Amino acid sequence: MNEQPIMKPYVIGLDLGGTNSVFGIVDSRGEIKATTAIKTQGYDKVEDYVDACVQALQPIIEQVGGIELIKAMGIGAPNGNYYKGTIEFAPNLSWGHNGIVPLADLFKERLGIPVGLTNDANAAAIGEMIYGVARGMKNFIVITLGTGVGSGIVINGQVVYGCDGFAGELGHVIMKRENGRSCGCGRNGCLEAYCSATGVARTARELLATTDEPSLLREMNPEDITSLDVSIAAGKGDKLANDIYAFTGKMLGEACADFAAFSSPEAFIFFGGMTKAGDLIMNPIKEAYEKSVLKIFKGKAKFLFSALEGSSAAVLGASAVGWEL
Amino acid sequence: MNEQPIMKPYVIGLDLGGTNSVFGIVDSRGEIKATTAIKTQGYDKVEDYVDACVQALQPIIEQVGGIELIKAMGIGAPNGNYYKGTIEFAPNLSWGHNGIVPLADLFKERLGIPVGLTNDANAAAIGEMIYGVARGMKNFIVITLGTGVGSGIVINGQVVYGCDGFAGELGHVIMKRENGRSCGCGRNGCLEAYCSATGVARTARELLATTDEPSLLREMNPEDITSLDVSIAAGKGDKLANDIYAFTGKMLGEACADFAAFSSPEAFIFFGGMTKAGDLIMNPIKEAYEKSVLKIFKGKAKFLFSALEGSSAAVLGASAVGWEL
Repeated sequence: MNEQPIMKPYVIGLDLGGTNSVFGIVDSRGEIKATTAIKTQGYDKVEDYVDACVQALQPIIEQVGGIELIKAMGIGAPNGNYYKGTIEFAPNLSWGHNGIVPLADLFKERLGIPVGLTNDANAAAIGEMIYGVARGMKNFIVITLGTGVGSGIVINGQVVYGCDGFAGELGHVIMKRENGRSCGCGRNGCLEAYCSATGVARTARELLATTDEPSLLREMNPEDITSLDVSIAAGKGDKLANDIYAFTGKMLGEACADFAAFSSPEAFIFFGGMTKAGDLIMNPIKEAYEKSVLKIFKGKAKFLFSALEGSSAAVLGASAVGWEL
Repeated sequence: MNEQPIMKPYVIGLDLGGTNSVFGIVDSRGEIKATTAIKTQGYDKVEDYVDACVQALQPIIEQVGGIELIKAMGIGAPNGNYYKGTIEFAPNLSWGHNGIVPLADLFKERLGIPVGLTNDANAAAIGEMIYGVARGMKNFIVITLGTGVGSGIVINGQVVYGCDGFAGELGHVIMKRENGRSCGCGRNGCLEAYCSATGVARTARELLATTDEPSLLREMNPEDITSLDVSIAAGKGDKLANDIYAFTGKMLGEACADFAAFSSPEAFIFFGGMTKAGDLIMNPIKEAYEKSVLKIFKGKAKFLFSALEGSSAAVLGASAVGWEL
C-alpha cells in the first residue's frame, strides 16, 4: 500500500572535451554529488573510450547509491547532435573525426538508462543560463576557448540548434580568407585556428620565428610551448607573450562584432581554459569589439567570463540535457 | 441592439526601401487591395517624407472605403527597431542616417491608427514565412539584395530581434578585413559594400579600370553603370559582366557558409532587385557555399529566390506587423 515509487534523484553529466572527459553526478538542485574524469584521447575506437568511461563511472555511481538512483545521462560533446545523439566528424577526437558516432546509444546500452547528448558549448550555455552568469538573460553567446573554439547560442531563451542540430559552430567562421592557417576541420582561416589554446601556441611559434623580440618563451623548445606557457610569460610582463594575447583578443573581438550583427546578444560569455588569462585576453577583446562593431551596437554588449568554476557549467549543462529526458 | 461593431478589415503595409517606398492596403487573407509608391529619397527632414507618404496614401485609403476601415499600419524599414518603432542611424536614408527617427509615432499622429515597425528584411522574412517559399520552415535566412544588403533571420519559427531589436544586420559582417571597400555604415569591408546593387556597380567600375577585358559596359560612362546594366550585359554573354556576377556570388556564398555555422538554416532565400540576375548570381553562390561550408553542413541548405513578385513579400510582411498590433 505505502510502497514508494522508485526514486531516481540523480543524473550523470559528462563534459566531453578535446582533452578531458569530466563526469558529475548531479541532483535536481544542480549540486554535484560526485565527480571523476578521464583523458578523452588515446582510444582508437569509440567502444574503448566508452569502456574506460563506464569503468571510471562505477565507483562514483556506487558512491551515490547505485545505478537504480540515476534517472538518465546527459552529454556535452564537440560536434554533438542533439536531435540524433551522435557525434559527427569531430576533428579533434581521435575516435570521432572520421564518421558518425552514436555515442548516446552506446552509453544507453552499457548503463541501461536514457542518454541525451548536445554540443559541448551548448551544454555550457545551458549551464550558464540555469546556474551561471547568464541567469535571466534571453539572448547571449557562450564562446568556449579550449583545445578548439566552440559556441552555444541562446536566442529568445532557447539554445539554437538549427535545422539539423549543428548550429553554433562559431569556431569555424572564416577570419582570414587569404593565406589563412589550416584548421582541424580541413579548411583554412577559421577562428579556431587562431584563438583556441593550440592556436595561441601556433601564434607564439610564428612570432618567435618571424621577430627578434626577446622573450622568456625563447628558452623553450618551440614545439613544447602551450597557451599556459604564454599566459605565465605574459603574467611576468613578457612583451612578446602580451603581443600574442593582444593578437588573439583582437581577432575574437572582431569575430564578436560580426556575431552581434547576427543575433545582437546581451552578453558574450567566455568559457574554458584560456579564460585563465583574464584581462590579458579580455581587454583586447573588448577594445577590438567596440572599435569594429556596427554603430548601433556600440557600448551595449556585456563581456563576461563564466563564473562557474572549472568545468562545472559544462557538467551541469550536460546534466540538464539528462533531466529533460 | 443589433448594432455592428465597426469592422476594420484592412491594414496598411509600407515597404520602405533605400530607393522606393511601396504601400499596400492588405486584407486579412494577405490580398493586396490597393497599392501606391513614392521615392524614399529627396527629403531633408523625416516630416517632409511622412507628408509625402500621407499624401500618396489618401487616394488608396479612399479607394478601400476610408481610414475607418483600416486597423493599423505596419512598416518594414532599414535599421528599423521593432521594440521602439524607430529608425536608427540608417546609412542609406538622407533623412535618417544621422540619428533616431520615431517613424512609427510620426505616422500614428498623422493617420490616427496604431503603427508598428520592423527591419525591412525582417518584414520580408515574415512575408516569406506566411505567404512565400518559407511556408512550413522553422529555420531560414532571407537576404535582401537591393540598394543595401539586409537580412531577416528566423530561428525556431521566430524572427530574431536580439536584445535591442537590431539583430539580423548580415549586410555588415566583414568579408574583407584588409583594404576593404568603404561602406555606408562608416566601416570597411562589409558584405554590403560588395554585394548590394551599388556594390555590383562598384565592382564593374573596378574591373573596367583594372583590366583590359573588352565589354559592352565600356560603351557607358563608368559613373552611370548600374547593377541592371551589368545584368543586361551579362545576359548578352558579356564576359566581364559575367565575371562581376561570379565575384559577387562567390562572396555571398562564402558569407552564407559563415551564417550556416551560426544558425544552420534549412534555406537561404534571396530577395530584391538583384535576384533578377537569376542563375548568373545563384550558381556562383551555390558553388562557393558548397566549396567553403563546414563538412557537416555540405549539401543540406536550400538556395531559393523569393517567389513573391516585386515587393509583395515586403509589403505583406510589413502588414503582418500591423495585424499584430
